[in-house]
Amino acid sequence: MAKEPEFARVGLIGAGLIGASLARALRARGLGGAVTAFDQDEAVAARAADIGVADVAAGDLASAVSDADLVVLATPVGASAAALRDIAAHAPPTALVIDVGSVKGAVAAAATATGPALFVPCHPIAGTERSGPEAGFAELFENRWCVLTPLDRPDPAYREAVERAARLWRGVGSMVEFMSPERHDLALAATSHLPHLIAFTMMGAVDDLETVTEAEIVKYSAGGFRDFTRIAASDPVMWRDVFLHNKQATLEVLGRFTEELALLQRAIRWGDAETLERSFARGRALRRAIVDAGQETTKPNFGRD
Amino acid sequence: MAKEPEFARVGLIGAGLIGASLARALRARGLGGAVTAFDQDEAVAARAADIGVADVAAGDLASAVSDADLVVLATPVGASAAALRDIAAHAPPTALVIDVGSVKGAVAAAATATGPALFVPCHPIAGTERSGPEAGFAELFENRWCVLTPLDRPDPAYREAVERAARLWRGVGSMVEFMSPERHDLALAATSHLPHLIAFTMMGAVDDLETVTEAEIVKYSAGGFRDFTRIAASDPVMWRDVFLHNKQATLEVLGRFTEELALLQRAIRWGDAETLERSFARGRALRRAIVDAGQETTKPNFGRD
Repeated sequence: MAKEPEFARVGLIGAGLIGASLARALRARGLGGAVTAFDQDEAVAARAADIGVADVAAGDLASAVSDADLVVLATPVGASAAALRDIAAHAPPTALVIDVGSVKGAVAAAATATGPALFVPCHPIAGTERSGPEAGFAELFENRWCVLTPLDRPDPAYREAVERAARLWRGVGSMVEFMSPERHDLALAATSHLPHLIAFTMMGAVDDLETVTEAEIVKYSAGGFRDFTRIAASDPVMWRDVFLHNKQATLEVLGRFTEELALLQRAIRWGDAETLERSFARGRALRRAIVDAGQETTKPNFGRD
Repeated sequence: MAKEPEFARVGLIGAGLIGASLARALRARGLGGAVTAFDQDEAVAARAADIGVADVAAGDLASAVSDADLVVLATPVGASAAALRDIAAHAPPTALVIDVGSVKGAVAAAATATGPALFVPCHPIAGTERSGPEAGFAELFENRWCVLTPLDRPDPAYREAVERAARLWRGVGSMVEFMSPERHDLALAATSHLPHLIAFTMMGAVDDLETVTEAEIVKYSAGGFRDFTRIAASDPVMWRDVFLHNKQATLEVLGRFTEELALLQRAIRWGDAETLERSFARGRALRRAIVDAGQETTKPNFGRD
């Protein structure tokens, strides 16, 4: 007889790329049983049920979580505070509640005030440029880091919940790291939020040029532009919410970026070869470190085009 | 008996990634015969001969080109003007001479003044982040665009040379486009030079942060940062020369970029959700167009890490 999954009933709030991937991963690894999905967009929840991401599409949040052992909150960050309030009101107090949002300070603040008893803020550093339940796949989290930013609570029940959340992520193939919400938001501002902002900016800048056609951009994109397009194709609503909720850290790293850019702009204008060459030489070491750490792969999860 | 290759003797000036790849491609396709390589760095030419990119390493430029049917100029752009003068002095006047540089206005000006008789400026839009002869591979140019910016010369011998150059690129698998040097430099400033500059800037900005460690950058690079590192690992000297020789067009598109960035920065500061979402929505269409055009592949040339 098959072993009973640790989380027999999973309530999934938000059935997009990450939520759908986690639902699939939990079942593929024998960790999750029946999945009930709720999504603000009813059609999305229905599609999730149709394609087997969920067993049932719920018409409201309450019925998705009312008998859950595990609640996965996978909405854009802007919807988290209200959803946490509703989960606290309707889920069993013994349910483990995790989120997957890219910003942790804001959600930790909301959860401390009104959140569910056993809420563990999580951020799997994984994704693709696709969205919707159809984009989900069980292997998304394999060999990726997942950052947990537990609330400041010493009680044993909560500490056990944190342990269970860590086991869950390890169970779907991730490596787990613990961090304060503030440190997470700053580290991710540099490694994820700024790169996305810059990639979006590049799309806007090039799209606006009267002097270069879109056909030319597409033709010559192998010259470098296309490296930006993957992340610039990411979900606009998700990213809007990231910048609205991680304003301070994003503006700080952005300030550093614009200083560096001004330096290089000046070097180009004045023909300062030495500054350009010295600055350009920094990229190789970082690339090598990323490749050596296995965070770049010959067959990335992403290359599914 | 095997057919005689169209270019029985090839003189290769500069045995880096692009030069070595073209030498290999010409031979793999039966277009090129014996290759004599010269490189400003003698050790590079010797390595090229050792690994079979070239048959012979020449000690000076003159002996690499003196009996060539085809001269391939594959140095950084800053070295082109002097090399073209030397090629004009030492190569047979009937030799087809092509370059592969990323900037065309400067080289066209230099060639008009002092260049070889049959010089056709070319730019294959292909590359990887690697450098040196060992990085070369014969398939680099397959399914990539190559832009030719012929000099303004109506004589039949030159027009035939342009035709031969176009056939050569098609012969190694490329698609060929003709363009003025000015238009090339503007289109590539947008699609290649600006993206590289921004990627280099990102490395500098993040490398300088006291608040985020390199270990964190590496760990969480899957969040977006690593998409920038491939092109930021490109050859610093080559890129230094690109910006020194395509100053005007680069500064123009950079101006557009900084305007767009200021707009988004302001939207983040003031919590302007609508501007952020509208701006972020532009990336998907461009990504789709690039994927549909086959300029993104599941197994990119580049993913050789």
